[in-house]
Amino acid sequence: MTRFKLTLEYDGRPYVGWQRQDNGPSVQAALEAALAAFNGAPVATVAAGRTDAGVHARGQVAHADITKDMTGYRVMMAANHHLRRAGEAVAVLAAEPVADDFSARFDALGRSYTYRIVNRPAPLTVDRGLAWQVPQPLDAAAMHAAAQVLVGRHDFTTFRAAQCQAASPVKTLDRLDVERQGETILIHAAARSFLHHQVRSMVGCLALVGRGHWTADDLRAALDACDRRALGYNAPPDGLTFMAVRYPAEPERSSLLA
Amino acid sequence: MTRFKLTLEYDGRPYVGWQRQDNGPSVQAALEAALAAFNGAPVATVAAGRTDAGVHARGQVAHADITKDMTGYRVMMAANHHLRRAGEAVAVLAAEPVADDFSARFDALGRSYTYRIVNRPAPLTVDRGLAWQVPQPLDAAAMHAAAQVLVGRHDFTTFRAAQCQAASPVKTLDRLDVERQGETILIHAAARSFLHHQVRSMVGCLALVGRGHWTADDLRAALDACDRRALGYNAPPDGLTFMAVRYPAEPERSSLLA
Repeated sequence: MTRFKLTLEYDGRPYVGWQRQDNGPSVQAALEAALAAFNGAPVATVAAGRTDAGVHARGQVAHADITKDMTGYRVMMAANHHLRRAGEAVAVLAAEPVADDFSARFDALGRSYTYRIVNRPAPLTVDRGLAWQVPQPLDAAAMHAAAQVLVGRHDFTTFRAAQCQAASPVKTLDRLDVERQGETILIHAAARSFLHHQVRSMVGCLALVGRGHWTADDLRAALDACDRRALGYNAPPDGLTFMAVRYPAEPERSSLLA
Repeated sequence: MTRFKLTLEYDGRPYVGWQRQDNGPSVQAALEAALAAFNGAPVATVAAGRTDAGVHARGQVAHADITKDMTGYRVMMAANHHLRRAGEAVAVLAAEPVADDFSARFDALGRSYTYRIVNRPAPLTVDRGLAWQVPQPLDAAAMHAAAQVLVGRHDFTTFRAAQCQAASPVKTLDRLDVERQGETILIHAAARSFLHHQVRSMVGCLALVGRGHWTADDLRAALDACDRRALGYNAPPDGLTFMAVRYPAEPERSSLLA
């Protein structure tokens, strides 16, 4: 048995989300079916982030134990063969053997997301389902300035979904940067971990700032309220992509265990 | 009656191409139906480039005569309303009134395309239908160097589709640049006009160079052969996007007419 760290890309549109659920196809079920197809025995996976329905990934990470004796390259190629044959919108970008006690979820030191807004009156075509189209002009510089209110260690109850399972609403947001590239506005968020719906809730409030409906002070008041009723708006899943997960380097990890 | 210059974006996947055809839905038919819906009378359109099935556009330009008295903004909004309602993957990004004798096709001074390759073993997910996945490593620097063989005025018969309707195979290619951004390779092509399949044919040959199967001299020999049988490979439509059309500035145009 070898444990593999799998780096995953997927299009969130056809799925109910990462997690296996009774109400529709999940990324986890698609991946586990592909891994079982060549492993010859069932394979369970654990992911760094449980993305919602319609949320995409460019660098989700999961771990899986493969009983067959295979290199990382063979695991990647075999998984992609079966994913492609099943018509799934999921790909394994890389597979590396890791220590038997590696956890994609609990060893993660940092997670990063990018949210994409297309700020124009015309509806989306090529980017439909891959961005949030906001027709009203948004002031990206004001959004970036206000976003800094949220950076740091805070009680993020205002930005937490009712069904959130995190033990505590206190999180440390390391980065929340807003940049405009033509008609596109990119919002980059990084933290050790996020509450359920936190990024989409923050983006929704930043859009209110961008439209001039909220000031940075309004955003601070919403944060301080620690009350979901103070939430302005939840941005749609379409624009959200799980970009990357950071883990301790191997030596660092060993020293932590020593 | 006012003639409008329409800047268009579309996802090429659901269409048989720009041009109205009997064998399936076209971008032209979708646009003309939307324009007729608010104009109250049929509207004919003429485009700068007749893109093929599966080819996308970010800056196609067409002209149309609208008999109703409307501003450019109202034309854009009304067209998008009807396109969206019909579920079309076409959007009007801008609409401007122009001179009655403006031709989106014949007044064009330059057309530019970008071709996107994703160079990695893993299949596409989010970008499926929007790029060409090439699993073998490509040498983008070698591709760029070889591409310069094609820049300039040449007989491009080798890179011309059998069904091409252009009067002459002689064209002047202004730019053919290849750049790598991580796993993505972008190929930028610009010319006053292109032959049918010319960009896809050039990209297919550049991929042979990138894989080391062809040298720049092989590419030159294929060009010099002026024979379609010398063609290496036609790249798939998925990666091709019609980016922009350049027209004379209004004063320049007036002076040409004077």
